Amino acid sequence: MPPEADSPTTDDPVFRAHEGGKLAVAATKPLRDRDDLSLLYTPGVAAVSSAIAQQAELSFRYTWRRNTVAVISDGTAVLGLGDIGPLGALPVMEGKAILFKHFADVDAVPVCMESGSVDELVEAIARIAPTYGGINLEDISAPRCFEIEARLRARLDIPVFHDDQHGTAIVVLAGLINAARVLDRALADLRIVISGAGAAGVAVCKLLALAGARDLIVCDSRGVLGPDRRDLAGHKKELAATTNPRGVSGSVTDALDGADVLIGVSGGSIGEDAIARMSEHSVIFALANPTPEVEPTLAGRYAAIVATGRSDHPNQINNVLAFPGIFRGALDSGAKRISEEMKLAAAQTIATLVEAPTPQEIIPSVFDPRVAPAVAKAVAALA
Amino acid sequence: MPPEADSPTTDDPVFRAHEGGKLAVAATKPLRDRDDLSLLYTPGVAAVSSAIAQQAELSFRYTWRRNTVAVISDGTAVLGLGDIGPLGALPVMEGKAILFKHFADVDAVPVCMESGSVDELVEAIARIAPTYGGINLEDISAPRCFEIEARLRARLDIPVFHDDQHGTAIVVLAGLINAARVLDRALADLRIVISGAGAAGVAVCKLLALAGARDLIVCDSRGVLGPDRRDLAGHKKELAATTNPRGVSGSVTDALDGADVLIGVSGGSIGEDAIARMSEHSVIFALANPTPEVEPTLAGRYAAIVATGRSDHPNQINNVLAFPGIFRGALDSGAKRISEEMKLAAAQTIATLVEAPTPQEIIPSVFDPRVAPAVAKAVAALA
Repeated sequence: MPPEADSPTTDDPVFRAHEGGKLAVAATKPLRDRDDLSLLYTPGVAAVSSAIAQQAELSFRYTWRRNTVAVISDGTAVLGLGDIGPLGALPVMEGKAILFKHFADVDAVPVCMESGSVDELVEAIARIAPTYGGINLEDISAPRCFEIEARLRARLDIPVFHDDQHGTAIVVLAGLINAARVLDRALADLRIVISGAGAAGVAVCKLLALAGARDLIVCDSRGVLGPDRRDLAGHKKELAATTNPRGVSGSVTDALDGADVLIGVSGGSIGEDAIARMSEHSVIFALANPTPEVEPTLAGRYAAIVATGRSDHPNQINNVLAFPGIFRGALDSGAKRISEEMKLAAAQTIATLVEAPTPQEIIPSVFDPRVAPAVAKAVAALA
Repeated sequence: MPPEADSPTTDDPVFRAHEGGKLAVAATKPLRDRDDLSLLYTPGVAAVSSAIAQQAELSFRYTWRRNTVAVISDGTAVLGLGDIGPLGALPVMEGKAILFKHFADVDAVPVCMESGSVDELVEAIARIAPTYGGINLEDISAPRCFEIEARLRARLDIPVFHDDQHGTAIVVLAGLINAARVLDRALADLRIVISGAGAAGVAVCKLLALAGARDLIVCDSRGVLGPDRRDLAGHKKELAATTNPRGVSGSVTDALDGADVLIGVSGGSIGEDAIARMSEHSVIFALANPTPEVEPTLAGRYAAIVATGRSDHPNQINNVLAFPGIFRGALDSGAKRISEEMKLAAAQTIATLVEAPTPQEIIPSVFDPRVAPAVAKAVAALA
């Protein structure tokens, strides 16, 4: 039963905005009379169903698959809240669906599922996949998210995109491209430290490498991933082997000694002593939200360019600059995959939309209406 | 890729009505600026997610669960088309979602899944169930549908309703209540033959028995279910043991000898010789669609009252009279189950809306706006 009207949450504007949920489903065709009923439902619909059963690709023309993306989460890594379960995740997925619609006219539907093993989640998602034109994975904990996404990508013939990884990586790269322009530096020459080896950290590292970055160091909560770490397995072991070309060891403070760029995607805290050791004209992306890894005012005292995940500071690194256009482009072009080339092109496109980057503006506004169409066009061109 | 514009289906009005699909997802709250973004999405949404994670029932107040039903099919028994798979089922489920919205303002979302074992389907549906306020199962083949529904009902704390069973049964009972009124007969005294022992036939039989019918005979394609049948298992064996009190054996023609009511839910064909043997002032519900088991004009020559599933004949027995109001009532009242009492009450309510039944009008029009609210009220009153 619904809670009492005098529950303590009733007066809060956030709870008021959530009253009754945030999404509705609407017919796109009019149902006025028996004639409409016989077209949209029985008996007419049988001809459409038969045609699709014989030619599956027709589903992208005559069903909502043409424009529909599932926003799927098991609620194991929701925002900074952690493993709060599928019901707790639902308001976030509804919000994400609003963003999909607002920025790219994509019809997105939340699917919040009980968590389970990688096998169980892959099976459940693959089973319902025929319903959708694409799958946006969301807030699934690392390292499970890597295998879940990889197996779904291999198995399904629609785009599967874990936004916490790739959406973040695309927007970080876009911001870093423009930061490098402002500082007149080449990506390949920057010493870059990524603090955080979860979903976002891993994807940021991979995409920056693909874009030409060479001196990448990744740190987890125990310090630098490198050859002296004996406690690593899976994706962290792989990162230790493929990054850190100068063989740095120690803490994130050691890694930051002489570094040009810090990308915080950990939610941890990095102290003044650490950032004081960075090079002159450095770049700090402190993306934890709502509490950045480095307090922005402090960061600004040491770094030439500062970006956060927050809307109340300049240079907001926000996934919404990427995912709506990514899926718009994939749906419009019938792409079966979101390729690495598409991610790179999306980042470059977002960066280009800031014609004259400055330290206060390395990334377009979240509400810049040019972004999603431009990203969609870039993605579709590579399909 | 979409098919060519000159595909042979382009000029057909049914295909034109399906162009681009039939559903869209919309935000119910405005997203105008950064303030809205911070209420509907991060950082505001975190407070709602945390509250729901601590108190699951809040999900029925602050998420779309309050008003959202999944319309789930594996595509194994779609309309009269049979096992055409999940993609073929999708236009039907979209149409059903339009009916939910139009008649009862329920937000319904299609979920079409790859078929599999009963275990696999139950696991997948239970895993995604937290997303929804109710589950409408649709077009799942018998006898699997019985166990799938029963297991989901036992496992989940939201309403689970297989419409092919219960929606049909409710509307058949509503029509039969009024047919009995027209003929001044009592349900308990009618000799009733049900032709068809699939999802609809089984549910019709059970609900009629619950409503007081005593002389029920069920036939499958091999004839009467009764004590001499050695080939029966599962639900048919159970029906043979609990129906057919006079111990009739033989074909459907034998069963119809002296019968008052024929309810066809088989899709088969029943000949003139068979219906000629029915009692005077008989009732024929020939519900197969688009081809009724008995041709309606022929049925009218022998029966006092004829009903079909078609919109171009009087007395259309259509599930849409039941399911929108059933779920509206369940969602509004927070019902965890659709009980047998609710189904009976729904049927009685639908029947009552025809103030003065005649042979040409034993059931309300599909577009009668009084139906869904009245059904919802009856269901909610029993929650």
